[in-house]
Amino acid sequence: MRPFCRFARTAGHLQNTFPRYKARSFTATTQVNKYQPPKFQKQKDPIMATTTLKGQPFDRPVLDSMLRRRMFYTPSFEVYGGVAGLYDYGPPGCALQTNVVDLFRKHFVLEEDMLEVDCTALTPAEVLKTSGHVDKFADWMCKDPKNGDIMRADHFVEEILESRLKGDKEARGVKVEEKEDDPKKKKKKVKATEAVKLDDAVVQEYEEILARIDNYNGEELGQLIKKYEMKNPATGVEPLPPVEFNLMFNTPIGPSGNLAGYLRPETAQGQFLNFAKLLDFNQQQMPFASACIGKSYRNEISPRSGLLRVREFLMAEIEHYVDPHGGKKHHRFEEVKDVELVLLNRHTQLAGQTHVKKVAIGKAVADGTVDNETLGYFLARIHLFLEKIGIDQTKLRFRQHMANEMAHYAADCWDAELQTSYGWIECVGCADRSAYDLTVHAKKTGAPLVVRERLAEPITVEEWQIDLDKKKFGPHFKKDGKTVEAAVEALPQEKREALAQDLKLEGKITIDVEGVGNGKVEISKDLIVIERRKRVENTREFTPNVIEPSFGIGRIIYCLMEHTYWTRGSDGGDEARGVLSFPPIVAPSKVLLVPLSTHESFKPLLRHMSLKLRSLGVSSRVDDSSASIGKRYSRNDELGTPLGITIDFQSVQDKTYTLRDRDSTKQVRADEETILTAIKSLVEGEKVWADIEKELPTFEGQEVEVPVR
Amino acid sequence: MRPFCRFARTAGHLQNTFPRYKARSFTATTQVNKYQPPKFQKQKDPIMATTTLKGQPFDRPVLDSMLRRRMFYTPSFEVYGGVAGLYDYGPPGCALQTNVVDLFRKHFVLEEDMLEVDCTALTPAEVLKTSGHVDKFADWMCKDPKNGDIMRADHFVEEILESRLKGDKEARGVKVEEKEDDPKKKKKKVKATEAVKLDDAVVQEYEEILARIDNYNGEELGQLIKKYEMKNPATGVEPLPPVEFNLMFNTPIGPSGNLAGYLRPETAQGQFLNFAKLLDFNQQQMPFASACIGKSYRNEISPRSGLLRVREFLMAEIEHYVDPHGGKKHHRFEEVKDVELVLLNRHTQLAGQTHVKKVAIGKAVADGTVDNETLGYFLARIHLFLEKIGIDQTKLRFRQHMANEMAHYAADCWDAELQTSYGWIECVGCADRSAYDLTVHAKKTGAPLVVRERLAEPITVEEWQIDLDKKKFGPHFKKDGKTVEAAVEALPQEKREALAQDLKLEGKITIDVEGVGNGKVEISKDLIVIERRKRVENTREFTPNVIEPSFGIGRIIYCLMEHTYWTRGSDGGDEARGVLSFPPIVAPSKVLLVPLSTHESFKPLLRHMSLKLRSLGVSSRVDDSSASIGKRYSRNDELGTPLGITIDFQSVQDKTYTLRDRDSTKQVRADEETILTAIKSLVEGEKVWADIEKELPTFEGQEVEVPVR
Repeated sequence: MRPFCRFARTAGHLQNTFPRYKARSFTATTQVNKYQPPKFQKQKDPIMATTTLKGQPFDRPVLDSMLRRRMFYTPSFEVYGGVAGLYDYGPPGCALQTNVVDLFRKHFVLEEDMLEVDCTALTPAEVLKTSGHVDKFADWMCKDPKNGDIMRADHFVEEILESRLKGDKEARGVKVEEKEDDPKKKKKKVKATEAVKLDDAVVQEYEEILARIDNYNGEELGQLIKKYEMKNPATGVEPLPPVEFNLMFNTPIGPSGNLAGYLRPETAQGQFLNFAKLLDFNQQQMPFASACIGKSYRNEISPRSGLLRVREFLMAEIEHYVDPHGGKKHHRFEEVKDVELVLLNRHTQLAGQTHVKKVAIGKAVADGTVDNETLGYFLARIHLFLEKIGIDQTKLRFRQHMANEMAHYAADCWDAELQTSYGWIECVGCADRSAYDLTVHAKKTGAPLVVRERLAEPITVEEWQIDLDKKKFGPHFKKDGKTVEAAVEALPQEKREALAQDLKLEGKITIDVEGVGNGKVEISKDLIVIERRKRVENTREFTPNVIEPSFGIGRIIYCLMEHTYWTRGSDGGDEARGVLSFPPIVAPSKVLLVPLSTHESFKPLLRHMSLKLRSLGVSSRVDDSSASIGKRYSRNDELGTPLGITIDFQSVQDKTYTLRDRDSTKQVRADEETILTAIKSLVEGEKVWADIEKELPTFEGQEVEVPVR
Repeated sequence: MRPFCRFARTAGHLQNTFPRYKARSFTATTQVNKYQPPKFQKQKDPIMATTTLKGQPFDRPVLDSMLRRRMFYTPSFEVYGGVAGLYDYGPPGCALQTNVVDLFRKHFVLEEDMLEVDCTALTPAEVLKTSGHVDKFADWMCKDPKNGDIMRADHFVEEILESRLKGDKEARGVKVEEKEDDPKKKKKKVKATEAVKLDDAVVQEYEEILARIDNYNGEELGQLIKKYEMKNPATGVEPLPPVEFNLMFNTPIGPSGNLAGYLRPETAQGQFLNFAKLLDFNQQQMPFASACIGKSYRNEISPRSGLLRVREFLMAEIEHYVDPHGGKKHHRFEEVKDVELVLLNRHTQLAGQTHVKKVAIGKAVADGTVDNETLGYFLARIHLFLEKIGIDQTKLRFRQHMANEMAHYAADCWDAELQTSYGWIECVGCADRSAYDLTVHAKKTGAPLVVRERLAEPITVEEWQIDLDKKKFGPHFKKDGKTVEAAVEALPQEKREALAQDLKLEGKITIDVEGVGNGKVEISKDLIVIERRKRVENTREFTPNVIEPSFGIGRIIYCLMEHTYWTRGSDGGDEARGVLSFPPIVAPSKVLLVPLSTHESFKPLLRHMSLKLRSLGVSSRVDDSSASIGKRYSRNDELGTPLGITIDFQSVQDKTYTLRDRDSTKQVRADEETILTAIKSLVEGEKVWADIEKELPTFEGQEVEVPVR
């Protein structure tokens, strides 16, 4: 929605030092249109000028209406008026989701022996405090003091300025198209844009503010509202200064209300907390990955963009744990090194370019574009996954985070972005998060979230060791004994050396021990020995680094629907009919069974073919309604059903059937066995329609409806 | 945990008039041990005397420790101290869950063309207010005024009385076993039971209270606490009177905090609200079913019983919509009519019996034991599903709800109960909920949650119709016009007849119209005509009835683990080793690949077999650790892996492999192709091990470890 160049023009002013918690970023929420070249600014339009699979102009409202009519999705609780940002998947959407998740499991979890876990969404506050979400996972919102309207501060500023710019254009006689993507907003009686001409300098100021709208903090947004006298059109009143709003849903756990809890905003934390057990399950072998597929929750201030920014959504996250030493190699990198990706790296973004060529991931890792093999391996695997489910390869790119867009601890981060009518949408994040997460939880809880590895060759360490004479030490310090002992144990090596010197020269040492006496404690040489000694280490202990591919399944599904959608002109001059060209592997249903009519003689064959397909593991649906064959096929083209079997009077006589291809509408005819074999090979991806067309006789047009005998 | 007879002894006092919301019932939470014959009372023990699959005494702590060690499940957030009632599934538990859900989809959703939807867990309060959950989905809790402890009132009464009875037994010199099922409770320093002898009459009073503990309301529990001077052992203070605690997690939606919301306590409501759209999706054809698989949430006051009573859990619910007229027939009932079920009906329960014989569902429906075919169909299908996933058929029964246990609108209700060491556990509820849910939502929202069916033969209806002279009516009543008109339209048929008489005799009628004048309105005959006329109806409108099979997936999984568990004595005199005899179809992993040793020559074969199995769609895992073959197999017996392939030096030479059966530990040996075919037939359920043993040569003992050449 905001096709502005953030980085080329504003790189110096970026505030995102903690992007994991910036509600804007995906691992927080969306960052719609993170990057567009400067030229794009002037073509700003809420519906991006994209084209369908067949190169037709893309019409979002038409697709959207079709998706709702076919119940791919529907606003939740619509009979109660609905709730913004909550959607239900209807039968085809739900089946599509199940198939994508199933493929995710096969492609990632089973293929790589990942350890899948199912962690709870309910999360105690303490965990999310440690992870940083309680403090940082927030957006800026401002409130209208008159009617209590709550608006996301950046959205508010953006809308006011856009509206003024539009008024300016109208005053200058430039034609402006109406936004059509948010029917709800239209219903609100927002004051119509006034056609007021602005100074050229003001226009430029506004455009510059819009260009860096993502980068203002609350105070700055408040200053902009004041400076440009922005008022809520609904009340004519200036909103109150922006305040931070944490995007997590909070809900106390248990009856006392004392245990603060949240719904998780991501599945990652549950995986990190199970690290030690998972390592144990994996028999202490490194590297390994865990995975979790489940719902996450973000209490968006004002959800827009349909299925792309919702309050409850399905995520699939992988946490791959790798030894930080040795360059983060991956033992299967060789298998993917020739996979070619569109990589939009930092330098290209800084140079204001977007046109990038595909490059083999092997080369990108070798030349340092991608930080390491493991990260590169996952980028390639993500690419292959998206390709497999039917994402348009020309609308996929991997965009590298800018240095100041990443968390300080992150080594590298790439987003798989998919191009849609909303712009480039981040659908998968793939970050090298270093040892951050395990470290903070270990520090907070004292749990050993580390790997202990037996060294092939023991190493000898020379160090200053301290021995206390416990028998005398306790009685000497009495109740402070443990505190003093702990302070002694905690003395760092460099200090020990100096103290050893003191002990030798003065016969005693003085150390700082908080809470004991005046904070200084003397220990005489009869109680303590400090010596340099050699120690042999057989194990090495380290906190693994985490490579985290994080998938927004709902976003991927929405993009998939845009990418596979096209229309075909009707023969009869009706409206263009919609088609969703899902690959068979993810299509909600694989085969439509249509009898030529409701004639009784077709019923046994329908049932027979249904059972046959089920026994092959191929999902099918019957449409024996009285609508014409054409209408029934049209309906299933909209549902994305790739294949159709027609049962006609000839089928009753000779047990042959026609098989129809959704995309070409071509038909072939053959006996049952041949048709079933063809279907199985198509559904399993062994063959494509062109193969079938070559092998089997083409069938032209269904016979007329003549009953048998 | 409370093996008491609720119905035989207390049927007259039952309070449950609205059991859907009674937190005790499953559709609310658990009803552990709903029914046991009176005799059982005296054998009360928290761990029921059950046996394993092989008839061995069942030892819950041993199984539990194995399940945690193998990470079937683990307490969530354990490194932060854990949260009661929240558990994560580790890799084998998660895979088991995925397989059970997958089978649920195949067995129910695909088999019956159900319309699966994925609705949000976040739910606006208004929806749950209408459904009754806001007012009724509660438990009684009481608070200790001294330390703030919150206890479930019935649990508190129960524990105090049990403790006193135990003290009495000790005083009488009867040996009492310690409860072992709740390690947490042990840690709390509850005052040890005092050995105080009670009067025989008091003992009887206590036992009678315990027998009907499920049936007291808050006030009655409060009276019991007062009467018997029950004090919290932790403080010695009597708790405050019980107050109702709603078990739903609440969380406001959106930034203003004005939209009250809850996490759904069941998935049903989302399905009901989509009824009209689903009917449309189904092309207006009845009957049909929707289904939803997803997490639900219940804020239990004090969760006990491990995985059986948790705060976040996976449900799978089916809402089958059926025409209430015509006896609720099911067109596939014929297919299941001979399935035999253990049916514990109302009468048997009232007679205090539990020993019931299997009866064919066809007979049970015919003789009226089960209310109708559709309900009977689903009971049989539930039975077949549980059988398929490996539930012990001798530990499964269907228990009918007592008349006063059901909601007033329910026609019939049966629970599939599974026997475990916690007693009989309700795992699937199957209720005929009549038209209740659709009716209340339609009434609240005005949405037409009805079916309109074209009548085969139009019917003629004779009725009293009213015509208003709109031209005069409006001006006459002015601002009250619409209100009066609505009141007239709403007049029922019997009233219309009388009014027609009045109009004829007096030239005017007087009707009640709330809010207009003094509430009485006169309408003269120049404004109104009331006549008996004939009307032809072409369509029939009705609210469908709902048959609702509701599955607690987590409970089923726990019971499955108890049912498939057994131990086998070790040869070497070690401890007995655990086995989970999951059927291959649900087993977390199907095949274990073990090389005889870590010798390099095995590696290519391991990889080859892994890939082969994957291409067959069979999940496998490799264990190439240095542990002995026996240890590695033991580990996988505990994980429930049904098959094992050993790769030894002979394999390297002649490409033959041994295949091991988990349950018998027998092995056969054959070439790759034969072994793979055998595995596929076992995993797909076409063959059982006995078949394979007959077909392939037995293999005795692995060779010693001699490298090739």
